[in-house]
Amino acid sequence: MKIAIYGYGNLGRGVESAAKQNHDVELIGVFTRRAPETVKTLTGIPVYKASDVLSYKDKIDVLVICGGSATDLPKMTPALAEHFNVVDSFDDHANIPIHFEKVDAAAKKSGHIALISAGWDPGMFSLNRLYASALLPNGKDYTFWGRGVSQGHSDAIRRVPGVVDARQYTVPIESALDAVRSGSCPELTTREKHLRECYVVAEEGADLNAIETAIKTMPNYFADYDVAVSFVSKEELDKNHAGLPHGGLVIRSGKTGLNNEHTHTIEYKLTLESNPEFTSSALIAFARAIDRMHKRGVDGCKTVFDVAPADLSSMSPEELLTRKPYVL
Amino acid sequence: MKIAIYGYGNLGRGVESAAKQNHDVELIGVFTRRAPETVKTLTGIPVYKASDVLSYKDKIDVLVICGGSATDLPKMTPALAEHFNVVDSFDDHANIPIHFEKVDAAAKKSGHIALISAGWDPGMFSLNRLYASALLPNGKDYTFWGRGVSQGHSDAIRRVPGVVDARQYTVPIESALDAVRSGSCPELTTREKHLRECYVVAEEGADLNAIETAIKTMPNYFADYDVAVSFVSKEELDKNHAGLPHGGLVIRSGKTGLNNEHTHTIEYKLTLESNPEFTSSALIAFARAIDRMHKRGVDGCKTVFDVAPADLSSMSPEELLTRKPYVL
Repeated sequence: MKIAIYGYGNLGRGVESAAKQNHDVELIGVFTRRAPETVKTLTGIPVYKASDVLSYKDKIDVLVICGGSATDLPKMTPALAEHFNVVDSFDDHANIPIHFEKVDAAAKKSGHIALISAGWDPGMFSLNRLYASALLPNGKDYTFWGRGVSQGHSDAIRRVPGVVDARQYTVPIESALDAVRSGSCPELTTREKHLRECYVVAEEGADLNAIETAIKTMPNYFADYDVAVSFVSKEELDKNHAGLPHGGLVIRSGKTGLNNEHTHTIEYKLTLESNPEFTSSALIAFARAIDRMHKRGVDGCKTVFDVAPADLSSMSPEELLTRKPYVL
Repeated sequence: MKIAIYGYGNLGRGVESAAKQNHDVELIGVFTRRAPETVKTLTGIPVYKASDVLSYKDKIDVLVICGGSATDLPKMTPALAEHFNVVDSFDDHANIPIHFEKVDAAAKKSGHIALISAGWDPGMFSLNRLYASALLPNGKDYTFWGRGVSQGHSDAIRRVPGVVDARQYTVPIESALDAVRSGSCPELTTREKHLRECYVVAEEGADLNAIETAIKTMPNYFADYDVAVSFVSKEELDKNHAGLPHGGLVIRSGKTGLNNEHTHTIEYKLTLESNPEFTSSALIAFARAIDRMHKRGVDGCKTVFDVAPADLSSMSPEELLTRKPYVL
């Protein structure tokens, strides 16, 4: 399968690295809106102008679109789905239905296939919410995020006057996890589920109390949470908080039995040292799947829910049945 | 969707209870090899003779076969797949390829669809091994079972002279779980992964030391494990060990990044108060999926790997995209 990367940031670099781990994947190049000569790839693969992408139509089985969900993907994915099979990691949950419709119309126009919203949430977490609800219809599910860096919340802190830099970790609260795992199906408030842990670099002489108050009372981002603010030096932030770890848990508990006498708990937990690299790995697996589906005549917009798991694997159907230790 | 149950033991009763939780499922009856008048169902649904099943061909969308993997399913599933869409929970991993071939040939002969090996292992654990290996190709996965009752090991203890009754729990060893979760990809021996906990009722006057030695040195079943034997009264066994809890974990850790510099861990954990009832719930969800697939013209033998997750859910495609809290 020949793929190309469209957009070369954290996610694009992740796809470049992940392609090396997948022996059935050939990465033919990177398309960028920057001047190609200013972009140096990690593995030396060629860099092309984004505006030239249509000249490579016949050389690419799946184009992996590595853009942001706020402004890039709503335009890029429908535009490119008219000419390529594409996969993206659109993660703005509320706008998925609109994105889906636009991409579906574009892809069907030319008989291409597009898979949107690959990654972990949406993505693997979505799959686990779906599987768990199908298996335990009489139950309740919970999604926890973290411990991990929220880019949006880090940015919000950086906009507070007197702040030079910041990193915000979203942290699931252990007592909430325990309550959910017990099968008691608790009602949990926003504050009971997650803690927000902030590492903040302040300008010299800034009013630290004022910064802390500004953060803790910020509506939408922090006001509904317990928030821990620590002031650190720029050196400490760069040394200890440079990574982009993330992850979280999807837990569903539910009842079975004639009188609902038995409780079951299904827990899916991700611990990711690099949020973008894990998402990149998901993009490659779903690119493989849609390439296979397209070769069987499938077109239009798809989500992770529409992909038979066997299509994600580089293993053959025979190997999936017979490999030891057992996959099936 | 109209379903019927073929075989009425723990699993069949579980399907009967689970059907009540799925509003799109109508259970038309139970087929049994026993004399129907001797079988009383939990919910009062009708009981029919197994030998009459072919007369109900037009009334059943999917026949849910609830038999044992050792002797029932290898015969039942291929025989019934010639006349019905069927689902089973065949769980003898080593013989899945043979079972698959026989069922595939039978189902294709008449254009029916059959899904084998639904449940949790094989089943949900298989799906998680597949998804995790597709997402983290450079990694290693581990499956742990328990804490839960192993029927096979309990039976093996009952065959020891002087034993009246017994219950064996398979227990994952916490230090092994911790090592795996750390991402260090340890090599673990059989003994390091699971402990075997045995509750044994002995005949009056039996030689308890001899029984304990016989259990601990039993090849295949116990000799390769650390084994804890506790002698209990029949009353205690019936009171505290009557249930059939089970579950376990599938954990994969793997590396991403240009130089494999980032470690990720994916963990899927099941805690089940009733092993057969959870399997029954899986049988219903996969029955729903193959009913939909068959109506789209799909036939032959399938496994959980071949089912697009959306087909398992009673939710419509639109609801899967738009429901809040978000599924996708």
